[in-house]
Amino acid sequence: MLVYWLDILGTIVFAVSGVLLAGKLRMDPFGVLVLGVVTAVGGGTIRDMALDAGPVFWVKDPTDLVVAMVTCMITIILVRQPRRLPKWILPVLDAVGLAVFVGIGVNKAFASGAGPLVAVCMGVMTGVGGGIIRDVLAREIPMILRTEVYATACIIGGMVHVTAYSTFGMPLQQAMMLGMMITLGIRLAAIRWHLKLPTFTLEN
Amino acid sequence: MLVYWLDILGTIVFAVSGVLLAGKLRMDPFGVLVLGVVTAVGGGTIRDMALDAGPVFWVKDPTDLVVAMVTCMITIILVRQPRRLPKWILPVLDAVGLAVFVGIGVNKAFASGAGPLVAVCMGVMTGVGGGIIRDVLAREIPMILRTEVYATACIIGGMVHVTAYSTFGMPLQQAMMLGMMITLGIRLAAIRWHLKLPTFTLEN
Amino acid sequence: MLVYWLDILGTIVFAVSGVLLAGKLRMDPFGVLVLGVVTAVGGGTIRDMALDAGPVFWVKDPTDLVVAMVTCMITIILVRQPRRLPKWILPVLDAVGLAVFVGIGVNKAFASGAGPLVAVCMGVMTGVGGGIIRDVLAREIPMILRTEVYATACIIGGMVHVTAYSTFGMPLQQAMMLGMMITLGIRLAAIRWHLKLPTFTLEN
Repeated sequence: MLVYWLDILGTIVFAVSGVLLAGKLRMDPFGVLVLGVVTAVGGGTIRDMALDAGPVFWVKDPTDLVVAMVTCMITIILVRQPRRLPKWILPVLDAVGLAVFVGIGVNKAFASGAGPLVAVCMGVMTGVGGGIIRDVLAREIPMILRTEVYATACIIGGMVHVTAYSTFGMPLQQAMMLGMMITLGIRLAAIRWHLKLPTFTLEN
Repeated sequence: MLVYWLDILGTIVFAVSGVLLAGKLRMDPFGVLVLGVVTAVGGGTIRDMALDAGPVFWVKDPTDLVVAMVTCMITIILVRQPRRLPKWILPVLDAVGLAVFVGIGVNKAFASGAGPLVAVCMGVMTGVGGGIIRDVLAREIPMILRTEVYATACIIGGMVHVTAYSTFGMPLQQAMMLGMMITLGIRLAAIRWHLKLPTFTLEN
Repeated sequence: MLVYWLDILGTIVFAVSGVLLAGKLRMDPFGVLVLGVVTAVGGGTIRDMALDAGPVFWVKDPTDLVVAMVTCMITIILVRQPRRLPKWILPVLDAVGLAVFVGIGVNKAFASGAGPLVAVCMGVMTGVGGGIIRDVLAREIPMILRTEVYATACIIGGMVHVTAYSTFGMPLQQAMMLGMMITLGIRLAAIRWHLKLPTFTLEN
């Protein structure tokens, strides 16, 4: 039940993030709708294609699709020509969606019988997939390629989630909440204080 | 039978559109072939991966693959160094492929038991998928991000198709033709008269 | 058994190529890890989604995933601030991975009952998929769009592999080795002598 609402939450924030990014691109409302929906359901779609456990989630149950569409429409109507949006809005929304979807991705991977390593990968893929598609379509530099501990946050959050459950026997739901808190905390801290890891740079 | 020929038509026009775009990029003939084939079969491939009803269509029946390859080769040979191509060629070919593939996508979704909403999404995905892959690979701005009612056309066409069939009980084939006409008509009108919806623009 | 080791080899060289490209982008180590792993397993992932023969290979058996991760970590540690990397390193690694993965892709397609044409396509897709995702994410021009007989090499190598096996009855493993040699030979020759086919260029 908690997972259900978290899933709705992640869908909403990613849909909003897609719409806000689209606002930079002078698209018409239906184009904005497509970009928002793709951002919201993209990561889970790639995950389900890879797990190959039947049709992707929004074909089995279109709830998330409806939520994403309605969110996009409401956002388009409400946010139309607002006062200048603060710069932190898009990264913070993205951080919430990232944390939630990493956790859900890990759980779905466990539910289909995957081991710990594959579960972390599925979590990361679910979390970062939608945002990557959003950024590639919008020709932005994908967030995962930037330095502010983006991949780091979801890999660590996913590993905590998986370890707490597989190694320490924590109930799956609590392990998920713990992992989400860690992913979210790292990302928010990184956004607030511009934390960076040292970059890996070659002169080639 | 009609669907069969429409599918061939959509494959041909999208393959040609991929080849013509490739002509801007100074690629060699085999690279052009790859870009043309990906454009032609890309949308349906994503759709089939999401529906997860066995291998994608060109694995089950390579007809479309052969059609796409032969089309690319013929186009490369015939169009080599033509007089300056008129600017409307690429968008018009794209419009025909878009209209046809939205209709076919909706039908395939219905055939695999999807509801109306998922059917519209599958139609849009089938229609825009190949062109998006083409534009992302060629580093063009994806057509769907431009203002000239691109997403709008296929969403409305798809909705008419689905509504005519699900709500008004029109035979599926007629509903498909109706939806295709609407998608194509909107796109052609938009190309001819530079129709635009008001854009959704934020100052962020 | 040979195939097993070739697969490991292809995974390693593609992972290294992803890490080296990431070195241009000022990413942090976990971002580099993600880019390296995606490059290494991306092509096979798309192939398995299209063949739809159960979960993708690294879900069934995470060996390649582990190999890719460990390779990325070792590369990050060892290659950190090396003397200026020679320019041919990245294309040569890519060529080895390309040759190996085209061959493996063709074999997997045959194993799931595909015909010759689909097998060549699956081979090309497996070979070029990871590199395309790497280049799209890193906002480089995809190698396949460049002129130096990239698509050409893997299409010809794949066709030789398929023809030797299907038409001339050569044992599959030998046919694979022959195809790989040809793909690799063409690519290395192209890199060494800057071979190009005439480009297909339109003035549109």
